Amino acid sequence: MIAVDWGTSSLRAYLLDADGRILEQRRDPRGILACDGRFAEVLAELVGDWPGEIVLCGMIGSRNGWIELPYLPCPADAGALAAAMHAHTDARLPGRTLWFVPGLDCHAEAGVPDVMRGEETQLAGLAAVLGAGRHLVCLPGTHSKWAWLEEGRITDFATVMTGELYAVLRQHSLLGRLMSDDGHAFDEAAFAQGVARSGEGGGLTHQLFGTRTLALFDRLPGEALGSYLSGLLIGHEIRHRQPAPRDVHLVGSAGLTTRYAHALALLGIGAQAHGEDLAARGLHAMASARGIALA
Amino acid sequence: MIAVDWGTSSLRAYLLDADGRILEQRRDPRGILACDGRFAEVLAELVGDWPGEIVLCGMIGSRNGWIELPYLPCPADAGALAAAMHAHTDARLPGRTLWFVPGLDCHAEAGVPDVMRGEETQLAGLAAVLGAGRHLVCLPGTHSKWAWLEEGRITDFATVMTGELYAVLRQHSLLGRLMSDDGHAFDEAAFAQGVARSGEGGGLTHQLFGTRTLALFDRLPGEALGSYLSGLLIGHEIRHRQPAPRDVHLVGSAGLTTRYAHALALLGIGAQAHGEDLAARGLHAMASARGIALA
Repeated sequence: MIAVDWGTSSLRAYLLDADGRILEQRRDPRGILACDGRFAEVLAELVGDWPGEIVLCGMIGSRNGWIELPYLPCPADAGALAAAMHAHTDARLPGRTLWFVPGLDCHAEAGVPDVMRGEETQLAGLAAVLGAGRHLVCLPGTHSKWAWLEEGRITDFATVMTGELYAVLRQHSLLGRLMSDDGHAFDEAAFAQGVARSGEGGGLTHQLFGTRTLALFDRLPGEALGSYLSGLLIGHEIRHRQPAPRDVHLVGSAGLTTRYAHALALLGIGAQAHGEDLAARGLHAMASARGIALA
Repeated sequence: MIAVDWGTSSLRAYLLDADGRILEQRRDPRGILACDGRFAEVLAELVGDWPGEIVLCGMIGSRNGWIELPYLPCPADAGALAAAMHAHTDARLPGRTLWFVPGLDCHAEAGVPDVMRGEETQLAGLAAVLGAGRHLVCLPGTHSKWAWLEEGRITDFATVMTGELYAVLRQHSLLGRLMSDDGHAFDEAAFAQGVARSGEGGGLTHQLFGTRTLALFDRLPGEALGSYLSGLLIGHEIRHRQPAPRDVHLVGSAGLTTRYAHALALLGIGAQAHGEDLAARGLHAMASARGIALA
């Protein structure tokens, strides 16, 4: 089978054997916003030579994607996600069935709703790895997701806009004007100072201003301000998701999970990192549950 | 005497009599960033026909202004500010002395420093109005200032980046893309919903994402999202500055002070609004304290 994780800004495809082992994988920079609606052509170009059914997750199943699937309510496990998958055919991919995985919502009936699309599949993959028990998972990113896995089910989750807030403050606010690093440098001491500051009073919108005054008083150099702001925002995120110390499972790129593990360690919390290929594992679990031919 | 409040984006000048009454006032859109360094020419053009010494406060006394004055440490009162004023002459304003009021800093030696430039003068003016006692003051804006006045002295203050955060989120984040109002519309119910939400858990960076999901689930129309976000940010600001209910003195434009008074009322806190012309009153008090000829 072919597993496809197709998000806003990237596309990853995996050729899997019947047991879910990755035989081959391909990446493409054409996320859904870069396809101009030509999803079938892009997919045929990328995996047309691979055999098997195609199972897709991520923003490809959203309003701006190929077809729009409604969210499935949380709690949900791989079986529920598999049962809600939508079969689709396209003349430009003859003889194939395309299976789209829905996203999840929570608190949609009362309170403020939250949503995910793509992460539910990584979580389903992680649930297969972790097995029984109660696990707290963080998938850091532009919009970080924090989720609880309980006995293999995704029971609750929350989105935190850390990555986007960092980007807009850096690019468009007064704080960014003082930053002289390239946006990727990591100053460990300044990051730790930001994480520590996030535990003090006054609220985040007050603490943010300190990024400016610390520079104004030459207490932090311009090259360290980005790391300070990153520590402040990640520290704020963790403190609000993790009231009691408990190990956190991190899913994402090595760069981001390393940074989050560092912040968690500063707060006395353990972390275990998992790779992004969990999406392939989740898609395989759903295909199995749905009875899709795997080979 | 002539009182000048010269900020980043606006310039206000007042002709005062010996008792501090405003005889005439003029406004100009040329804040310090719009002057291209030609401060003397702009000022001569605006108030050259008025008699008297000139006393100036605001960002005109900063690195990007006419001359850079160091911050005076807090606590400070009108007398301390007056004593720290810097006298300056300029050939383009012959026969005049220009008196620049310094800004204030607090926590500059330990912890994270905070600064103000211009608001200290409004606060000195307000102290003259309010007299003895302990008063909590909020000056809402791009960077809101919250300050304590105690027996006529500014004893402590904090900056909150509410206005700037609202602007960058609206103009540059995913949240702004869903907003369909003109940026000035006020939806009272949505604003109240945002203020209420700011008291719930999860942290601000999580709550911000709700602005998106409430729209996604058609729980708020696009025209109401700006007011919701405004309520969320102002609510967050107030809750972190005001742990115990106590009346707040608001200083600023009618539009902003009305909005803040509304949020305060929703949280059971009283408010009293004061106009922006307090700067003229503060400048008069400082000129008197310094023994500058008032008429």
